[in-house]
Amino acid sequence: MHSQNWMIEFRDNRSNMYRLVRTEVSTTSQYQEILLADVQGFGRALFLDGVPQSSALDEHIYHEVLVHPALAAHKQPRTVFLAGGGEGATLRETLKHLTVERVVMVEIDQVLTDLAKTYLKDWHQGAFDDKRVEVVNEDARRYLEKSPETFDCIMLDLTDPFVDGLSTPLFTAEFFMLAKAHLSEDGILALQAETVDYGSCKAHVAIIKTLQNCFQSVLPYQVFLPFYGLPWGFAVASDLQNLCQRLSPYNVRQTLLDHGCSDLRFYDSETHEHMFSLPKYLRNAIADATALVSDRQPLALPRPSAPF
Amino acid sequence: MHSQNWMIEFRDNRSNMYRLVRTEVSTTSQYQEILLADVQGFGRALFLDGVPQSSALDEHIYHEVLVHPALAAHKQPRTVFLAGGGEGATLRETLKHLTVERVVMVEIDQVLTDLAKTYLKDWHQGAFDDKRVEVVNEDARRYLEKSPETFDCIMLDLTDPFVDGLSTPLFTAEFFMLAKAHLSEDGILALQAETVDYGSCKAHVAIIKTLQNCFQSVLPYQVFLPFYGLPWGFAVASDLQNLCQRLSPYNVRQTLLDHGCSDLRFYDSETHEHMFSLPKYLRNAIADATALVSDRQPLALPRPSAPF
Amino acid sequence: MHSQNWMIEFRDNRSNMYRLVRTEVSTTSQYQEILLADVQGFGRALFLDGVPQSSALDEHIYHEVLVHPALAAHKQPRTVFLAGGGEGATLRETLKHLTVERVVMVEIDQVLTDLAKTYLKDWHQGAFDDKRVEVVNEDARRYLEKSPETFDCIMLDLTDPFVDGLSTPLFTAEFFMLAKAHLSEDGILALQAETVDYGSCKAHVAIIKTLQNCFQSVLPYQVFLPFYGLPWGFAVASDLQNLCQRLSPYNVRQTLLDHGCSDLRFYDSETHEHMFSLPKYLRNAIADATALVSDRQPLALPRPSAPF
Amino acid sequence: MHSQNWMIEFRDNRSNMYRLVRTEVSTTSQYQEILLADVQGFGRALFLDGVPQSSALDEHIYHEVLVHPALAAHKQPRTVFLAGGGEGATLRETLKHLTVERVVMVEIDQVLTDLAKTYLKDWHQGAFDDKRVEVVNEDARRYLEKSPETFDCIMLDLTDPFVDGLSTPLFTAEFFMLAKAHLSEDGILALQAETVDYGSCKAHVAIIKTLQNCFQSVLPYQVFLPFYGLPWGFAVASDLQNLCQRLSPYNVRQTLLDHGCSDLRFYDSETHEHMFSLPKYLRNAIADATALVSDRQPLALPRPSAPF
Repeated sequence: MHSQNWMIEFRDNRSNMYRLVRTEVSTTSQYQEILLADVQGFGRALFLDGVPQSSALDEHIYHEVLVHPALAAHKQPRTVFLAGGGEGATLRETLKHLTVERVVMVEIDQVLTDLAKTYLKDWHQGAFDDKRVEVVNEDARRYLEKSPETFDCIMLDLTDPFVDGLSTPLFTAEFFMLAKAHLSEDGILALQAETVDYGSCKAHVAIIKTLQNCFQSVLPYQVFLPFYGLPWGFAVASDLQNLCQRLSPYNVRQTLLDHGCSDLRFYDSETHEHMFSLPKYLRNAIADATALVSDRQPLALPRPSAPF
Repeated sequence: MHSQNWMIEFRDNRSNMYRLVRTEVSTTSQYQEILLADVQGFGRALFLDGVPQSSALDEHIYHEVLVHPALAAHKQPRTVFLAGGGEGATLRETLKHLTVERVVMVEIDQVLTDLAKTYLKDWHQGAFDDKRVEVVNEDARRYLEKSPETFDCIMLDLTDPFVDGLSTPLFTAEFFMLAKAHLSEDGILALQAETVDYGSCKAHVAIIKTLQNCFQSVLPYQVFLPFYGLPWGFAVASDLQNLCQRLSPYNVRQTLLDHGCSDLRFYDSETHEHMFSLPKYLRNAIADATALVSDRQPLALPRPSAPF
Repeated sequence: MHSQNWMIEFRDNRSNMYRLVRTEVSTTSQYQEILLADVQGFGRALFLDGVPQSSALDEHIYHEVLVHPALAAHKQPRTVFLAGGGEGATLRETLKHLTVERVVMVEIDQVLTDLAKTYLKDWHQGAFDDKRVEVVNEDARRYLEKSPETFDCIMLDLTDPFVDGLSTPLFTAEFFMLAKAHLSEDGILALQAETVDYGSCKAHVAIIKTLQNCFQSVLPYQVFLPFYGLPWGFAVASDLQNLCQRLSPYNVRQTLLDHGCSDLRFYDSETHEHMFSLPKYLRNAIADATALVSDRQPLALPRPSAPF
Repeated sequence: MHSQNWMIEFRDNRSNMYRLVRTEVSTTSQYQEILLADVQGFGRALFLDGVPQSSALDEHIYHEVLVHPALAAHKQPRTVFLAGGGEGATLRETLKHLTVERVVMVEIDQVLTDLAKTYLKDWHQGAFDDKRVEVVNEDARRYLEKSPETFDCIMLDLTDPFVDGLSTPLFTAEFFMLAKAHLSEDGILALQAETVDYGSCKAHVAIIKTLQNCFQSVLPYQVFLPFYGLPWGFAVASDLQNLCQRLSPYNVRQTLLDHGCSDLRFYDSETHEHMFSLPKYLRNAIADATALVSDRQPLALPRPSAPF
């Protein structure tokens, strides 16, 4: 006889089980439940409100894939705004671009950033202490509403837009327009954009459609994330007319070299091609999309109050 | 989509799943992993090394059943020795007997007693502060080896005797003899004695058989524990010749009145009858038992190092 | 990597997991889903609509406990009516009483009895072929409504009274009165009466209360059933004035001898005492009960249509 | 309270849970356990020895991806040999190429093909009855050893090469050479080649490396399979010198048009690009590979005899 602690993510089709080998921290901040645990096969991992966020095994995939396409699409990104990203790994990847002079990271939950500093050292690798970085613990939308600053890149590294979620107001047309107003000329927005799983890609498609209404160029892309067990969607959006050309595999390779970050673990130009060539069902779903996301009609993924 | 944290107790036949609604404390002391969590349907609960120990819903059943038969079998229990019982609830029940003047509680894990004081207030209900009580954080066997004191009752409220368990050396003939040497005349030993589940009662039977080798009178008994999902075995043992008579339902009722604790939540004389009348399979298993438990051949319930 | 098939019984507190080692038959009759499988630790087992019914390991406990108290309370039971009991094991136990001359077994689901004949040979042990037995595949309530016959004992071996359950109309005052009308003088009704788990005994208590309104004497009793992981309630009910005396341990022992079935696997007079002495919480719950079960207000245990 | 039947696929990191809403057929053939069930979110699905094979929701992804690249790489595939593929869906996709005149399908398990005919009609869509098709129930390796015939394409649609698996001898250099000997000039081999999950791609890499030792051109590719929750590897292999050019997105699009199957559900030229552009970690793993698979050193994925 023996006991095991499992985090079970019940989904509409296949459900995921994660074995918690050891719980490092389990606490509730003002904003969310935070669980730092060692997970069988994944090592140290972070769950927020019970939802898997990132693991030692594969966090570099998520964070490289969120950060580098946008920064590779910009000739000389000097200033970067980062919403969310409490682990510090989006920050870490951003700082690899030698052109970057200033990063403002606005993460609402100070408890999370404090825990990350102690327990997720492989995630941030000291990025919080880089002198180019300013960390603000505040709501990112409120921050931008007050700030006069513009940025070359804005990255949204947010939790899922659940019905009662912290991040839901940051997945709307209104917020995308607010972000756009804080982009400098040729500025680029990048974001995680929910799963593109066959048959479960509605939220992704609505996000892409909404971005298309706000920006001249939107490029969705995707990659499989082992910790989630799902292919995950991302997007870059901009009013740059030649965004698509700038994200050709050739240009990406050259820009990564120019920016001094050509030796990444996961991302390179062929991986880029893999990510930006979309399966037919996803292209069709985006082409056929009509639903838009707004403050009045936000994404509101269900999070049942009672499990059974 | 939503996530749930489940503690799964894999057993050889039926396995148990507990939904952790909220984790209060998850820590590792020098001796064991300690988890205090709120469990669906059970309220606050304690797990040690992942094994369910007690829950707000039904801890009174376990603790009343461990404590009161032994104290009801003794005419005037003045001094009590308690091994284990870190939650403080065995202490709480013991102190209900107005005859009790001194309780020495020896619980090895100070981290556990400290956590209990903060997070298990309904368990101890202030018992740790009762002036009749002395709490010592030490190994109970070592304590008794050094102590010259004798007691009217000795209660063993111990974790399971796993192969690598803290409590395993406290389930042997040698330790039972040591305890006996610390009983005053007419003194009584009481202990939790593992499950009596049909087909899984080997450890219980071996404990009873070993007690029979050490004491003139041994009375095994049992009760269903909702949190464990199992009928659980206990025993009282003594060299008192009339232990059996003293534990007749009539005597039990009278002694509880005399001791000032006749209004318990779970235990009374008819419940006593239910607990001390054993099903045939269990009587037969005890009658047929041959295995004895000793320091050289301890109980060593398996706790697999790797689950899969 | 390996796959395992688990039947998970989600309950409000502790949930049960059963590992299906091999599925023998999985089919849907006109009335219910029938699963015959080999279950880790329990051997061959029957599930109806996903709910565990009985297992090779411990079916003798349930079936002996349902049958023998009632038959031991009757001096000379000649005729027995059995509602449900598709496995044939209630029949098997009934036929052990040498006084029994005729058993009418009314089980609604012929697919179930046919499968039992092939796959549950250790359950019925040929009882279906005993010449004292008449098996009718019909609704037991409708059968009794039409039948002029009276019986010395009526046994209700029914599935749980779920909101949409087959058995729900057989757990009402109206049906109990119908059964009573088919009892001969000194006749006795026996039934399974749902779990008596601490904190989940509402259905049991309502059944007992309703029986008390219909019969002069009602004796509830209980036993732990390993396959269910729960203490399970039963009852005998009669207008016999001395039912209670007839069920004293002494009388039970004598009558079993007289009826030629004194060597049962689980049940004997001390086991009887264990079963009929009820824990205090259960006695109190029954004493305080007010809810009655009727055709207009039936028991209707919830069976959620969708799990998540 | 309610019960649910779950198939749990325990893996070294994330485990998968599938809810069986209804079991259609559960049987054991001479070769394997066969389970046909309706699975929450996936519809009808097939499990062999408990391992998920294909589901109504997404079987078209797997089967299109296995079949069409190879057939699109061949100018005029007339004859096709198919090993495995008991569901009949690989057959269905193969027959969409109008050039195909003869398909020999060798599936070892007749029980499986018989069940597929009845319960997987959406899979085969009558393909078994196509007059171009010959179905043989025999071991594919033995069949090829005896057959003098050559084929334009050979497809291996096999179960995982478990340590005790039926398919293990069909994943070795010896078998690949045997298959090659049965390819006509310009003939092409295609196969499923196990998961390419980050950190679990050893078997895939060993298969690719072994193919590279047997063929002049090998092109590995991959796609996410929702039912498995994993990115899955495939490969085409040939002695064709210009295999790579023939599999350019432009050529693929043209050949699908020429073959009369340009309107597939999942696969088209951009999807092709997505599948054939590999992430860096996978390219590196293949480049660094040394392990070869042979009859003496076969793949032998572990399948633990006891679960705990």
